[in-house]
This record gives sequence, C-alpha cells and structure tokens, in this order.
Amino acid sequence: MIINDPAVVAEVTAQFERYENALMRDDVAAMDSLFHDAPTTVRFGVGEVLYGADEIRAFRKGRGGSPQRRLGRLEIASYGNDLATTNVEFFRDGSSQRGRQSQTWVRFVDGWKIVSAHVSLEGAGS
Amino acid sequence: MIINDPAVVAEVTAQFERYENALMRDDVAAMDSLFHDAPTTVRFGVGEVLYGADEIRAFRKGRGGSPQRRLGRLEIASYGNDLATTNVEFFRDGSSQRGRQSQTWVRFVDGWKIVSAHVSLEGAGS
Repeated sequence: MIINDPAVVAEVTAQFERYENALMRDDVAAMDSLFHDAPTTVRFGVGEVLYGADEIRAFRKGRGGSPQRRLGRLEIASYGNDLATTNVEFFRDGSSQRGRQSQTWVRFVDGWKIVSAHVSLEGAGS
Repeated sequence: MIINDPAVVAEVTAQFERYENALMRDDVAAMDSLFHDAPTTVRFGVGEVLYGADEIRAFRKGRGGSPQRRLGRLEIASYGNDLATTNVEFFRDGSSQRGRQSQTWVRFVDGWKIVSAHVSLEGAGS
C-alpha cells in the first residue's frame, strides 16, 4: 500500500479546498456533492451528531451558514489509491479557541467523497 | 466496492472493542498497538492535538488514564476490504454531556490500525 502518493494527495487536497470554499460561501449543493450520499455517512459537528446523508443535508439547509474561519495546520494522508484522511486546525473569526476538523475521504466511481467527518472546538481537560 | 461486508465489519468491531477495553484499563501498550505507528497518524483529543505516533504515545504515557465512560450509539462502516470508520457517542461518568469519538481504520499487513482519531465533547452552537 502506497502511503502519500503525491498524485493522490494532490487530488484529495483539491477536493478538500473545494469543500472549504463551499463551506465559507454556504454553497449547500457543493457541500452535499462532496459527502457520500448514503445512510452510512456520519458527521459529528461542534454542537450536533448527524447520521446519514439525509440528516446532514437537513442540517445544512437549516444552518444559515458556518461561522467564517481561517485554517491552521493541515495534514492530509493517503493510503493506497482510494482512501485519504484530512485533519486541519481552524480558528473562527473573533475567537482564539482552536477548532479541529477531521474528514475521511473515499474514492467512489463518481469521485472522492467524505464518508465521515468530525468537527469540534478544543476544550479543557483530556 | 462492497460497503459493510459483514466479515469486515465483524473484524473491525472486534478491534474497536479491544481499543475501548484498553482505554478503560489504561493499557498503553495495547492502545499503541492499535494505532498505526507512523508520523502520518493524527489524534485530536478533547483537549489536545497530536501529530504522529510519537506524540500520541507520549501523551498516553503522561495522561494517567482516560476518564471512565459508557458508550452510546455506535456506527461502524466498512468500504472495501481494508478501510472502515467507527463513530461512537460516549458519556463520561458523572456527566450528561455527550462525547463523540471517530476513528479511521486501515488494514495493514500487520492488521487493522487506526490512522486518524478525533474525540470531543459536544459543545454549544454549531
């Protein structure tokens, strides 16, 4: 299994950036298109747990957009040709509290999709 | 790509349970053995960000064990033969605040390993 094949990492990086741009614009259709449309897809957000693409879509529609943020350290790792993880720190406008976003990406016949995502703000304790 | 092949899900479920048992016993060696030993492995914890297996190991050694917890809803999904995600809710003893743990598992030649993990407590807002 080739880890961090440059071509794979480049592909996933491009999709990661597409997602971030869509999030900042509140482009719900673009965000939806990057999540695997299946009941198995999970998104744990800062204040919610969402099971399946339907719950994720409903949340996005009702959210009114994400807080604006800038990204910090980003780590993308690929395992073979069809799997990658992205882990990134972020800081929301007006806050110094560190946020963290993790995504698991899988390559399907219709392209790279997020199958699992977890977003949180760093808290006290461990 | 076969999603949720029962044999694959069963394997990953067994490893997931091994990890949970090791965490509750503070069996650092067992936890370490279930994380991919590589600089690409990432663990975002409730109160820390850890990049690479060395940082993760050092954190575990100095932690003095995880708070005890019970698990809530668990979703395990596999994609093909060599990739799975686990997403579980948890509740620490004495707290009603929901915790969430996400792990990405990859099958290597030496078995299933976590390549990315994110643990958080659900916060206010979205």
